[in-house]
Amino acid sequence: MTATVKYSIQERAADRARIRYLLSEGEEVTEAILGKPGPVDEHDAQRLHDDIDEVTQLARRLPEPDLADTLEALPSEERHALWRLVGEEKRGKVLHEVSEHVWEDLIDEMSDRDLLRVLSTLDIDEQIYLAQRLPRDLTGRLLATLSPEERARVGQVLRYEKGSVGAIMEFEVITVRAEITLATVQRYLRRLGKMPENTDKLFVTTRDMTLLGELELTTILLHRPQTRVEEVMEKNPVTFIPTDPDEEAARTFERDNLVSAAVVDHQGKLMGRLTVDEIVDVVIEETDSGLRRMGGISAEEDVFAPVGKAVKSRWAWLAINLCTAFIASRVIDGFEHTISQLVALASLMPIVAGIGGNTGNQTITMIVRSLALQHIQPGNFGFLLGREMGVALINGLVWGGIMGIVTWLLYDDMALGAVMTLAMVLNLLVAAVMGVIVPMVMVRLGRDPAVGSSVMITAITDTGGFFIFLGLATLFLM
Amino acid sequence: MTATVKYSIQERAADRARIRYLLSEGEEVTEAILGKPGPVDEHDAQRLHDDIDEVTQLARRLPEPDLADTLEALPSEERHALWRLVGEEKRGKVLHEVSEHVWEDLIDEMSDRDLLRVLSTLDIDEQIYLAQRLPRDLTGRLLATLSPEERARVGQVLRYEKGSVGAIMEFEVITVRAEITLATVQRYLRRLGKMPENTDKLFVTTRDMTLLGELELTTILLHRPQTRVEEVMEKNPVTFIPTDPDEEAARTFERDNLVSAAVVDHQGKLMGRLTVDEIVDVVIEETDSGLRRMGGISAEEDVFAPVGKAVKSRWAWLAINLCTAFIASRVIDGFEHTISQLVALASLMPIVAGIGGNTGNQTITMIVRSLALQHIQPGNFGFLLGREMGVALINGLVWGGIMGIVTWLLYDDMALGAVMTLAMVLNLLVAAVMGVIVPMVMVRLGRDPAVGSSVMITAITDTGGFFIFLGLATLFLM
Repeated sequence: MTATVKYSIQERAADRARIRYLLSEGEEVTEAILGKPGPVDEHDAQRLHDDIDEVTQLARRLPEPDLADTLEALPSEERHALWRLVGEEKRGKVLHEVSEHVWEDLIDEMSDRDLLRVLSTLDIDEQIYLAQRLPRDLTGRLLATLSPEERARVGQVLRYEKGSVGAIMEFEVITVRAEITLATVQRYLRRLGKMPENTDKLFVTTRDMTLLGELELTTILLHRPQTRVEEVMEKNPVTFIPTDPDEEAARTFERDNLVSAAVVDHQGKLMGRLTVDEIVDVVIEETDSGLRRMGGISAEEDVFAPVGKAVKSRWAWLAINLCTAFIASRVIDGFEHTISQLVALASLMPIVAGIGGNTGNQTITMIVRSLALQHIQPGNFGFLLGREMGVALINGLVWGGIMGIVTWLLYDDMALGAVMTLAMVLNLLVAAVMGVIVPMVMVRLGRDPAVGSSVMITAITDTGGFFIFLGLATLFLM
Repeated sequence: MTATVKYSIQERAADRARIRYLLSEGEEVTEAILGKPGPVDEHDAQRLHDDIDEVTQLARRLPEPDLADTLEALPSEERHALWRLVGEEKRGKVLHEVSEHVWEDLIDEMSDRDLLRVLSTLDIDEQIYLAQRLPRDLTGRLLATLSPEERARVGQVLRYEKGSVGAIMEFEVITVRAEITLATVQRYLRRLGKMPENTDKLFVTTRDMTLLGELELTTILLHRPQTRVEEVMEKNPVTFIPTDPDEEAARTFERDNLVSAAVVDHQGKLMGRLTVDEIVDVVIEETDSGLRRMGGISAEEDVFAPVGKAVKSRWAWLAINLCTAFIASRVIDGFEHTISQLVALASLMPIVAGIGGNTGNQTITMIVRSLALQHIQPGNFGFLLGREMGVALINGLVWGGIMGIVTWLLYDDMALGAVMTLAMVLNLLVAAVMGVIVPMVMVRLGRDPAVGSSVMITAITDTGGFFIFLGLATLFLM
């Protein structure tokens, strides 16, 4: 695009797409790389050779994050083919970037020795990150390659649960003393020669690591070299403790526009830091898993997972769904006599149930989202319930009224139309009430309101819808 | 927590909760602040006075991001009450932080003069951000308060569409020349006296603003003062053009762990920069709106929106849902004769339809997500279709088989059980095929696959499920 930009993001995107194209379009390229070449004639052989050459060039040219991205976007065969072409010096960074299921897939065919050698090219924080995802025996072997001090740190992180700040904190931090001048800080930094990624501030501590404040890099640059650190440091920084939930940290990063923040223990001693790139991953994973959970797909399923894995990931929700459908079916069965006398009821009942499910899911989506953003608390419960019931009442009267008239005209039966309207209003009210109550109760029970809310509300509105409609019909039409 | 942390995030969270509690628990506090006091006896009056005092203190103490967060989490009445207590010096920043619907709600009761005065406390990038959300006549008045140069910049941003990099870029950048030394850069920075938020790098340009490279703050600190900028600058930085989609920029920020990046025009001239805090907002909004769209709720609906607004935001999906349910109902109606002869069909048919809808939605959630992450391209289509059909076949045989046996035992009718099994297998296959095809076709048509996919798949599996089950029953059981 410009003279200065030698490898633009557009070119990188094009190269990523080209690799995917070359590996996916025909199977020959992938098979040849994996050492399973089929029979090819001479002309094809030349083309195949060119294609493999091109993929190899592209794999050499693309930076690690792009390779990671491309590996994510390939089915398992093609993924392994590309992995063979990734140079050893890039493999560590790539493994660090890919998501967990891809990483498991890739290390499957690597020997333990190869894997440990690749990991040793990474810095300590990256090694710790990956150590948490290694099979237990490999973790031990990785630990054995570290210095005692590093080993102690890894042990510390492995103690913290997934989902806590401790599990995503980094150890490489630069600390300075409060009484030195900015000129001394600069000399110190030059002697260090490098800073960890995403360093926007140094941490000011006492000799025993008690955090006194933070010194932003911009502060160092904006003040005169003779200034002492304590005169310009931020004395009231945002800090986290390792047991804070990562989602809460993410919200604070977003709220305060942070790039990094200190992690301290209960005595206020500096343990490490959190950086925005881990936080972005948390945000993405959080919302992504919300989407998956509402859809009944477990986090382990990758779009290219084999059939067996996909079946396993989904069967639980199908089983639950089948049970609830079965219960609804039993409710209908209870009204067999009514239906046999007025078969029209069988065609109309799914409308009542369906509209309830739709409304209930709208309400639940809204509530789950607000709970996640911590916008709802007990004080608002009455307000929300009232609002959702108001919405349901209006929608019920409008759409139930329309459907009532349509039913009346279709079957020439005014009473049936009236039952239809009444049933829709009632089922929408049930949907609204349960749409508020179900996620609230799940939170109160200490469970994640996103998991299964949708299945539960659909079960309630289906069963409820059939019962209300067929019950009213039995009362008024028989 | 520690001696150095004077106002910890835990305390801030507690204060936010306290404000919400005081305003929401009883209506008196809110009403009194809004100047609508009801009758109270003397003892209550004292408590009311104390409560209002406390809210006022808290509003004074909390920083802007926390106030914004609290305003988001309050119903409209309480929100306005708190807004009255937010000092004028904080109002600009708060308005900049809140989401669009809250901002509209808040400025509703402010006079144009007040609003413009509040906006004038913000820096130019914040003013531009808000100018895009102002009613048209106010935008003009805001522009009139700016210098001609600033006005030109605002005009430039307003040209770019929402969802593009241009609409979220910032103008305040620091540029330096390539031939000067780092010592000169530092002197220059000290003279400037401040840097824009999230500055992790300076931009190296020619006199006519052509971007030559980027100079990270860490680079300045790590090298000797005599070093010249061009020796240490990054000559191949990641850059964006204003028309790039913001979601693509977000993915690049995530991939490359960026804090800020240059925005250049087609000639390679520096126009402004993107920062990670805008990007985090994009990521959150993107995934959030995905969730909303799949649930059939428009982005304008806030959890505290009044009933009328909520009805408006949701009615379209309800109407579509009603239409599809009506079509499904007509399919059932076509088999009225069959049902009247075997009423058990009426109770069993929702099971077939329901399980299809569940499977279809699992498939669609997976596909939509992968499309969003750009992990799917035409070459994978066959693979995905094959995989989903394999999953559906296995699930169909297992669960359909179980339901077939249950049906057989329940109704003592083996043929009915066999029809049940066959119908479930077929409907699961329909769900899998359509779950892959529907979002793919929507993308091909240039539409957002998340919008309405779920409604469409449910319509297909309902109608299809009823038709398959009742059709098979008519063929084999009548």
